Amino acid sequence: MKTETTIQGLTASLNPARATRKTIGFIPTMGNLHQGHLNLVREARQLCDVVVVSIFVNPTQFGPNEDFDNYPRTLEQDSNLLAEVGCDIVFAPSVEQMYGKYPRLTNISVSEITNDLCGLQRPGHFDGVALVVTKLFNIVQPNFAFFGQKDYQQLAVIKQMVRDLSIPIEVIGVPIARAEDGLALSSRNGYLTEQDRQTAPVIFKALKTAEQNLHSGQVLSDTLGQIRASLTDAGLIVDYVEVRNPMLQKVDQFDQDVVLFVAAKLGKTRLIDNLQVKRPA
Amino acid sequence: MKTETTIQGLTASLNPARATRKTIGFIPTMGNLHQGHLNLVREARQLCDVVVVSIFVNPTQFGPNEDFDNYPRTLEQDSNLLAEVGCDIVFAPSVEQMYGKYPRLTNISVSEITNDLCGLQRPGHFDGVALVVTKLFNIVQPNFAFFGQKDYQQLAVIKQMVRDLSIPIEVIGVPIARAEDGLALSSRNGYLTEQDRQTAPVIFKALKTAEQNLHSGQVLSDTLGQIRASLTDAGLIVDYVEVRNPMLQKVDQFDQDVVLFVAAKLGKTRLIDNLQVKRPA
Repeated sequence: MKTETTIQGLTASLNPARATRKTIGFIPTMGNLHQGHLNLVREARQLCDVVVVSIFVNPTQFGPNEDFDNYPRTLEQDSNLLAEVGCDIVFAPSVEQMYGKYPRLTNISVSEITNDLCGLQRPGHFDGVALVVTKLFNIVQPNFAFFGQKDYQQLAVIKQMVRDLSIPIEVIGVPIARAEDGLALSSRNGYLTEQDRQTAPVIFKALKTAEQNLHSGQVLSDTLGQIRASLTDAGLIVDYVEVRNPMLQKVDQFDQDVVLFVAAKLGKTRLIDNLQVKRPA
Repeated sequence: MKTETTIQGLTASLNPARATRKTIGFIPTMGNLHQGHLNLVREARQLCDVVVVSIFVNPTQFGPNEDFDNYPRTLEQDSNLLAEVGCDIVFAPSVEQMYGKYPRLTNISVSEITNDLCGLQRPGHFDGVALVVTKLFNIVQPNFAFFGQKDYQQLAVIKQMVRDLSIPIEVIGVPIARAEDGLALSSRNGYLTEQDRQTAPVIFKALKTAEQNLHSGQVLSDTLGQIRASLTDAGLIVDYVEVRNPMLQKVDQFDQDVVLFVAAKLGKTRLIDNLQVKRPA
C-alpha cells in the first residue's frame, strides 16, 4: 500500500492504472477509521481494480463552533487498518495541498435537502462536503465512489450533486455496519459511558419496531411519535425523528419506499441512525 | 465530422480516443458561430488529437428578461463552418438531455469577480455559465478547454472555478479575433447599421491609445476618463470603462499587468471589448 500526500504524487501513482483502463474505487474519509469505513473499503476491493482511500480532515465542512483543531487524527493507525483490508493507495493531503494559497471564490451548494435533518444545526456543512468531495473526485477521477448509508443525508446530497453536475462517477451507498446488539458503528460510540453503551441499541430497536408497525398498517405520524417516545423513555434527548423518501423529499404517508431518521443525545454524545423501509407490497 | 446529440452517443464516440490516451480539446459554444469561435477550434486543432465543439443554448445563463427563446439557432450553418476548420465531433444536446427531467438542486457560484463588469446587470448569469461548463467538462472530460478572451470575465471565472474545484483541465484563453479596422468580432456586429459599423472601431482605437498613454506614464484614472470621453464623443452610451488585474481583482495604479474593459451601446447594440496591457518594464 502506498501513501501519497500530494496531488502530483497521487496522479503519478494512478497513471499506470488509468493507462490500462483499470477501474478505480474511491472512499473519501476524515480518518479515525472504524469497521464502518473498512466495510466501504472491502466493498470497493470486491468491485474495483484499484482502491484509493483519502484521509483529509476538511476545514470547510466544520462550522465556527465545531472543533476542527481537535478532530482526532490517527493516520498511522488508520493506515494499518487500511492495509489489512486491501487498500492500494492512501491519499493524505495537507490543507494547503487541497486548498492552495490563493483565495477560493467558488462555492457549491445543494439546496432544499440540506436544510433540515442534520443540516438544520450545521449551516454550510453540506456546502463544505460538496466542495471537498467535488475536489477529491476531480483529483482521484474514480469510476466508483463509496459512502456509508449511516450518513444517509450526506449520501443523498452527493448523489444529487453527481446527477446535477453530470459527474461521471457511480456513487454506491454501503449499508450501515452495526454492532451485534444493533448499534450503528460510529467513532462517537467510544465516547459513551459503559451504561450509555448498554442503552444505545434502543435506537435501532425503535427503528425496527417502527418498520414492523408500518408494515402492519400503522399511520406514519403515529410511528414517528412512537419512536420518539421509546427514545425519550430510555433517557435520550431527541434531536429529530423524521421520515423522507430515498431522495430526501418529504412524505406524509407510507405509500412509497421511505427512510426513517433519528438523531438523539445520550449523555453528551449525539448519535444518528436511519432505516430504509420498503413500501407496502 | 460526427454530430452527437446525446451524452451516451458522445461517450461512445470518445471512448476509442480515451482508450488510446489521445488528447481531447473542447470548445463550449452557444452556436451562431463566427471567426472568433473558429479561431478557438483552429487553436484546439493544433494542440489536440481530438477536437470537440458543443453547441448548446444554455437556459440557466439567461435572465428572466433575456431572450432565450429567440437566441439564434443555426446548427446546419455552424456544422458546415466547423467541418471546414477540422472539428471532429459536434455535441449538440437538447435541454432535456443536459438537464434531465428531475429537479436540479445544485448550484455553483463564483463570488466577487462575478459581481461587477458584465455581471452587474446580469445577476445569476455566471452561475449559469459555471454550471453548464462544469457539466460539459464532466461529460466531455477534455484535457484542454478553449475560451475566447473577448469574454474575458467569463474566461477568468472559468479559470477561477477550475482552480478552486481542482478540475483536471487546462483552460486556454485565445486572443480576440478582430476585423481589419480593429473591431472585435461578435455575433452582435451583424445588428449594427452601416453607419454604426463605421463608428464601432473607436472602441479598439480608444483602448490602444490608452495602452500608449499608460506606457507614457499617464495616471490610470485619467486613462479611464479619456477612454470614456472618446466613446461618448463618438456617440456611444458607455456602460462601463474599468481596469482590473488579470484575475479580475481591482487595481488602483498601473504597477502590474492590467486589463482594460469597455462595454458600450452603439444604437441598440451593446458591444464589449478589452485589452491586456503589460506592466511597465
